[in-house]
Amino acid sequence: MFPSGFITLTTDFGIDSPYVAAMKGVILTICPTARIFDVCHSVKPQNIYQGALTLEKVARFFPPGTVHIAVVDPGVGTSRDIILAQIGDYYYIAPNNGLLTRVIRQAELDKVSMKFRSLENRGYWREAISNTFHGRDVMAPAAAHLLCGMAPQYMGVLTTSIVKLEIPEPAVSPTEIIGIVEDVDSFGNLITNISAKLLAGRATDDSVQISLSGRVVTQGVCRTYGDKPAGEVIAIIDSSNSVEIAVVNGNAAQTFKAAVGDTVVLSWA
Amino acid sequence: MFPSGFITLTTDFGIDSPYVAAMKGVILTICPTARIFDVCHSVKPQNIYQGALTLEKVARFFPPGTVHIAVVDPGVGTSRDIILAQIGDYYYIAPNNGLLTRVIRQAELDKVSMKFRSLENRGYWREAISNTFHGRDVMAPAAAHLLCGMAPQYMGVLTTSIVKLEIPEPAVSPTEIIGIVEDVDSFGNLITNISAKLLAGRATDDSVQISLSGRVVTQGVCRTYGDKPAGEVIAIIDSSNSVEIAVVNGNAAQTFKAAVGDTVVLSWA
Amino acid sequence: MFPSGFITLTTDFGIDSPYVAAMKGVILTICPTARIFDVCHSVKPQNIYQGALTLEKVARFFPPGTVHIAVVDPGVGTSRDIILAQIGDYYYIAPNNGLLTRVIRQAELDKVSMKFRSLENRGYWREAISNTFHGRDVMAPAAAHLLCGMAPQYMGVLTTSIVKLEIPEPAVSPTEIIGIVEDVDSFGNLITNISAKLLAGRATDDSVQISLSGRVVTQGVCRTYGDKPAGEVIAIIDSSNSVEIAVVNGNAAQTFKAAVGDTVVLSWA
Repeated sequence: MFPSGFITLTTDFGIDSPYVAAMKGVILTICPTARIFDVCHSVKPQNIYQGALTLEKVARFFPPGTVHIAVVDPGVGTSRDIILAQIGDYYYIAPNNGLLTRVIRQAELDKVSMKFRSLENRGYWREAISNTFHGRDVMAPAAAHLLCGMAPQYMGVLTTSIVKLEIPEPAVSPTEIIGIVEDVDSFGNLITNISAKLLAGRATDDSVQISLSGRVVTQGVCRTYGDKPAGEVIAIIDSSNSVEIAVVNGNAAQTFKAAVGDTVVLSWA
Repeated sequence: MFPSGFITLTTDFGIDSPYVAAMKGVILTICPTARIFDVCHSVKPQNIYQGALTLEKVARFFPPGTVHIAVVDPGVGTSRDIILAQIGDYYYIAPNNGLLTRVIRQAELDKVSMKFRSLENRGYWREAISNTFHGRDVMAPAAAHLLCGMAPQYMGVLTTSIVKLEIPEPAVSPTEIIGIVEDVDSFGNLITNISAKLLAGRATDDSVQISLSGRVVTQGVCRTYGDKPAGEVIAIIDSSNSVEIAVVNGNAAQTFKAAVGDTVVLSWA
Repeated sequence: MFPSGFITLTTDFGIDSPYVAAMKGVILTICPTARIFDVCHSVKPQNIYQGALTLEKVARFFPPGTVHIAVVDPGVGTSRDIILAQIGDYYYIAPNNGLLTRVIRQAELDKVSMKFRSLENRGYWREAISNTFHGRDVMAPAAAHLLCGMAPQYMGVLTTSIVKLEIPEPAVSPTEIIGIVEDVDSFGNLITNISAKLLAGRATDDSVQISLSGRVVTQGVCRTYGDKPAGEVIAIIDSSNSVEIAVVNGNAAQTFKAAVGDTVVLSWA
């Protein structure tokens, strides 16, 4: 696989941060033809797991050969290394702190090839390296050199020491699936870590009871938001094939004062 | 008219939503040369009329042949169809729910040609279609195929059943124009549905009294924000040729706790 | 220097403002190959100095020949002129109101060449010029014509009357450096106007005491955020070579209720 000219950026720099523009400028100065796309910059500061989740959800929609840069980097300037990964059809450049946890897990499930290098060759970094912004000084120029045709083996050495975070998996029994709210989107929809696959062979009509933080909020899994009237609580399979709790034309996170980590239980009597 | 390679996105996905990036990835995977621009993603959730207004205000500044995608889609997954419209110099792809109301109204006033197709050919959609995200699974790929040269007639069938919303029009008499606040911009400027054209032949000096929600807030229509000192309330013709109420170097929406829908009256004694 | 095809936008239009998209559409209609990048649109409304600071920090990372457009323009529609500047490797287009203050100061320090023109030739503007949006009607088309190859001398006349704002400089003595918080980033880091250069030859170990608004907050200047445990206050040299006060994995602005303009003192006993 060769880089296809696309770079994406996922960071915790905050919406509209000039730091993002600085990274883009560095990339374009080295590789003027690079095409750069923002995935998300509102990952909560230092929330590596949220960054990992975002990467997993969005990276796969980009063209093969896209270089995904992720910067959620509380250890910037310390001895943690920076990784250039080739995972299936994509490149990833990120600090070695767990940001790739979920794309790696998915790759393991899908049995796709993975190769990791620790970026060590300073020849592909900016000349002056700050201790607070390796996104601009190391990751951006490395991605740009990759797009310009530089082979990964010249940029860093192979490694297998990849930091991974624990992934909260749902507990599954014949009568219950116990999971958590894993993400809250901008509509206030509560996206759980319970994948649609886990529902295979189970009833999804009103015989399944869905509870949030110990309180029953709805029954049955709907097909579309339009299946119930505005204001009603529904469970639905979201666009990433996860069970989601939503309020039709409303905001479930506000309605239930719900947040990431809250318990969600599907139970069959 | 042929597509010119540009796509814009107007959605209610929220600022910095990864859902927007997913749409861009889908487009680029099909049509790698597509050039994609964000118009606005902070349309209030499910507020179709605000989306329609944004489209009307911004679409016309893009090059002819631009494909404008709009996704404010509370009916996603239900039987509502998705429209590919050719209106004057532009293409629009949007759910058939009223999002095109205002560009259609403007096209009628300008007497430009319009043609609508209902997107039905699943060959130009993604393979797996979620019930919650047709922006990614139907509209993005359709736009990408259009840019790649696919002719509209292969993508859907002609239709004339286009959903339109009611447009609130000002009431006009010799002594009064009664309108509403139609939009509030990021400066807190109150943009009304009273167009500058309605002022033709009328006095715009201090003899015209401007009131907001029943309270006189200023007199006369100014030429520039600099016509009055900081902190003063002014009426002015905005960049879309609408009457606007502003506070010089201030925020009129906050000053008056004003919102979309509030009544604005221009009156001549 | 010829324009290299890149344009950046720095404005106070607010995050996700459709006004930004309108400017991009105008540029692309004139120069379809233009590549346009957002620097920042959340400059506080009418805060020219913050715009000037953002330009200085980010412009230099873009490729030589980039055209930087800046629109923080409370005087829009009045007699203030609009400037096309050539400063070192870059072009700038901005109202003549102080927005270029800091890039000019830096250019003076670096002894790079500067040339200013007042944009007067309406042939390179949009046909109809609003009194409230010269970003769209004058600056965007001027930048686009520049990218298309139009020589600056045809677009405006040379001028040396450039408005500059006062730059707050730190007070330096053998035992103290007194500065201010000049910027607060999205992490809540407090970025001062005290450059790392001013620390040359001075102790940066615990013998230097750092106070904020009259209260000692930390001692010594750290090398990385990782030098102290989470929650601790540190001083550090930031990615623009300024002294910064931060809370490790926290938000210093919130912790100290600090804001731009607050006094920061480094003192050596």
